Amino acid sequence: MKHLLSAQDLTHDDIIALLDMADHMAEINSRPVPKVPALRGKTVVSVFFEDSTRTRLSFETAAKRLSADTMTFSASTSSLNKGESLRDTIETLSAMRVDAFVVRHKSSGVPLQITQWTDASVINAGDGWHQHPTQALTDAFTITRSFETPHTLAGRTIAIVGDILHSRVARSNIAVLTKLGAKVVLVGPNTLIPVHAQQWPVEIVYSLDEIIAEVDVVYMLRMQRERMETAFVPSLGEYTTRFGLTIERVSRMLEHALIMHPGPMNRGIDMVVDPAQLAQSRVLQQVTNGVPVRMAVLFTLLGGGSSQLSTGEEP
Amino acid sequence: MKHLLSAQDLTHDDIIALLDMADHMAEINSRPVPKVPALRGKTVVSVFFEDSTRTRLSFETAAKRLSADTMTFSASTSSLNKGESLRDTIETLSAMRVDAFVVRHKSSGVPLQITQWTDASVINAGDGWHQHPTQALTDAFTITRSFETPHTLAGRTIAIVGDILHSRVARSNIAVLTKLGAKVVLVGPNTLIPVHAQQWPVEIVYSLDEIIAEVDVVYMLRMQRERMETAFVPSLGEYTTRFGLTIERVSRMLEHALIMHPGPMNRGIDMVVDPAQLAQSRVLQQVTNGVPVRMAVLFTLLGGGSSQLSTGEEP
Amino acid sequence: MKHLLSAQDLTHDDIIALLDMADHMAEINSRPVPKVPALRGKTVVSVFFEDSTRTRLSFETAAKRLSADTMTFSASTSSLNKGESLRDTIETLSAMRVDAFVVRHKSSGVPLQITQWTDASVINAGDGWHQHPTQALTDAFTITRSFETPHTLAGRTIAIVGDILHSRVARSNIAVLTKLGAKVVLVGPNTLIPVHAQQWPVEIVYSLDEIIAEVDVVYMLRMQRERMETAFVPSLGEYTTRFGLTIERVSRMLEHALIMHPGPMNRGIDMVVDPAQLAQSRVLQQVTNGVPVRMAVLFTLLGGGSSQLSTGEEP
Repeated sequence: MKHLLSAQDLTHDDIIALLDMADHMAEINSRPVPKVPALRGKTVVSVFFEDSTRTRLSFETAAKRLSADTMTFSASTSSLNKGESLRDTIETLSAMRVDAFVVRHKSSGVPLQITQWTDASVINAGDGWHQHPTQALTDAFTITRSFETPHTLAGRTIAIVGDILHSRVARSNIAVLTKLGAKVVLVGPNTLIPVHAQQWPVEIVYSLDEIIAEVDVVYMLRMQRERMETAFVPSLGEYTTRFGLTIERVSRMLEHALIMHPGPMNRGIDMVVDPAQLAQSRVLQQVTNGVPVRMAVLFTLLGGGSSQLSTGEEP
Repeated sequence: MKHLLSAQDLTHDDIIALLDMADHMAEINSRPVPKVPALRGKTVVSVFFEDSTRTRLSFETAAKRLSADTMTFSASTSSLNKGESLRDTIETLSAMRVDAFVVRHKSSGVPLQITQWTDASVINAGDGWHQHPTQALTDAFTITRSFETPHTLAGRTIAIVGDILHSRVARSNIAVLTKLGAKVVLVGPNTLIPVHAQQWPVEIVYSLDEIIAEVDVVYMLRMQRERMETAFVPSLGEYTTRFGLTIERVSRMLEHALIMHPGPMNRGIDMVVDPAQLAQSRVLQQVTNGVPVRMAVLFTLLGGGSSQLSTGEEP
Repeated sequence: MKHLLSAQDLTHDDIIALLDMADHMAEINSRPVPKVPALRGKTVVSVFFEDSTRTRLSFETAAKRLSADTMTFSASTSSLNKGESLRDTIETLSAMRVDAFVVRHKSSGVPLQITQWTDASVINAGDGWHQHPTQALTDAFTITRSFETPHTLAGRTIAIVGDILHSRVARSNIAVLTKLGAKVVLVGPNTLIPVHAQQWPVEIVYSLDEIIAEVDVVYMLRMQRERMETAFVPSLGEYTTRFGLTIERVSRMLEHALIMHPGPMNRGIDMVVDPAQLAQSRVLQQVTNGVPVRMAVLFTLLGGGSSQLSTGEEP
């Protein structure tokens, strides 16, 4: 495995191996000094063309805990302003000996394109509506470890609720969760479920109330205010009435069922309840798990020696 | 001690302990390799909602010299732009295992609020007009070490001159300096001295000339140009005539008296003299001392083992 | 050598020593862990008043590979916004114990000015139209190592093509290349060649076609679109016709001749060919070489012990 561009590219065994590696990384994170020399001398460059403090800091933390050097290329202060092409920018950075690019871009496919211009590993940290594979791995890690079935989700049903149409998180999660054996149900207004979702390995329902009492995980997506302005929903109020997670809906969930959200939440719109108050919530656990999962991805792609994981201290 | 929110919270003994620790840190800073492994594996995140390169780099330098990892959360490129609440932002960062937040915000009380949303230590790096405790500790360190009385300022008089009303530096310094036994005199136009200052443990005078020949320290505050526009002073020229530090005023100071300023100076307005030309000036010494004092604060709050301070090299 | 302000200040022996040191640094860069402890505990601050991701990341990479701590002072988020002078900013940063400032500014002479306000080393990373000495050293390193004559360019002819008038790269390269014995030919429209270039140790021609078949290096400069608007050239199309590097022109170059460009390229204007497709191109090699050359400069200025270069691992 050299790049991580799409959750679609991951085999069942790839996923299992990455999640098992993440267990190891989580153990490192729990140490008094959560740092190993595994990627010392490697350089990881964040190339973010779209804001995402959450994802960028998660990758940066992961890289630092493996002792890699990190650098940030910010699109707004770059030669791109002088009209340099993305290709020249990547080739230039690459020529300084970069080991991995972590890329976020508003256009689908940019991370794939970047692989043609560099020998470094490329990790997709979110491209348009397309993919966000480390989020999906993080979510699979969170669900499997909550249910204490680390290697399978067979027999589990996961509802992904909301704006499926614009969601790279939904697309990535469908790929990973179904490969682990879960049944995925997409829930949302029909304007926010893509037509071609009919061909995906999922079930589709248009009512959260219809399904909420039966699923093992209620995975809420962010509902952006802009969607109302662009007529995907008649009003945010109506959206919340039909698809928001209210305390009443939580009360109808199965006792063991989990509440998840990739963040940032749009409180009062997609999340009416405060997840911090609910034992079922895994929302902050998802953030916590993002670090060991990204450590596992970086370590796997950059080929650090596994012997370097066994010590908590630099030699 | 878990947080450092306000100089008011510090006891006399806390202050002495921190200043003594800062002596130790200053010695580390004077070594050829000014770096110890005391906070290795700890993560310190700067959360600055208001620009302050000076304070941010001072904390960042302090953290790096203790071998902590540092990250910067910049409000302008964050999910706050997507409408995420401050609380969700802090909870999210916190879930990645942050050990300390260094917070600057234009609203008083934000650092205190943040303590409710995280298990990490919170250090107030300036909130509104309220507090800036590490600046006050730095100033106390600078004064006590200049006078070679590390544990007391008894018998010393310190004049704080200028815009007391809007100054968190003044409020913090009053707390620390009086606890060390100093007498503090506030000097400024009555429009820039808060009404309730009458209840503070200070003396108030409205003329710098009345007091300048008697004090041990002349502590000048920054006078912002905006104050004139908002009618706190009739003109900057008049302000400078009455409260600016001119060479004539310096000539009337006691021989051993010190000149201080927290920076950034507004040259020609609050500081008419060039402090770099004056032996009495401690202005740059204040900046230098900011690093060991912040190292002492980080080390004390994050509970590094003191054995790790005894070596200049990583093991 | 304490500062590196201008390629003019470098003697022939300085240049040879830096390039030989860069060979050593290139070897370190080729190791599995490209990192040595040579500058551990040193702090290198980038002070960039003009965008340049390329140069900033090259210096940052160089500093990290020598284990220095790096910090970035960004002009846009600084106290300069509050009206603090450049001098106060530098004195303040300097008081935190900075070992080197890497400075880019749109005004010629700012790096020199900064040396008066700090005890730290100052490295000019590009000032106005004046100088960019580490680019010139990188280019000299690239040329001498391509021709396998590390200590001389005697008998070589290097054509620098394009907008000489606004180019600090041209000025710096002329100084370094002629000191190594090369003959430099400036090529461009007469509006873009400064009048006083007649006094420089160069030849001047106004036609690329006249010289292209005879030179050992064709060094293309960036042609900025703004130059047309400001009437330096009648049109970019005409510029490209006369001075752009086309495949036809490449076909007339000497077999061993090199193509170089400091980047960012303005494809279709200055570079019509794609250098990635041409064996003669050293464009990406220039970027790669920038890191060891800047490591050599940092190491030389900051006086690290050479014994610390002999090991690839920290002790």
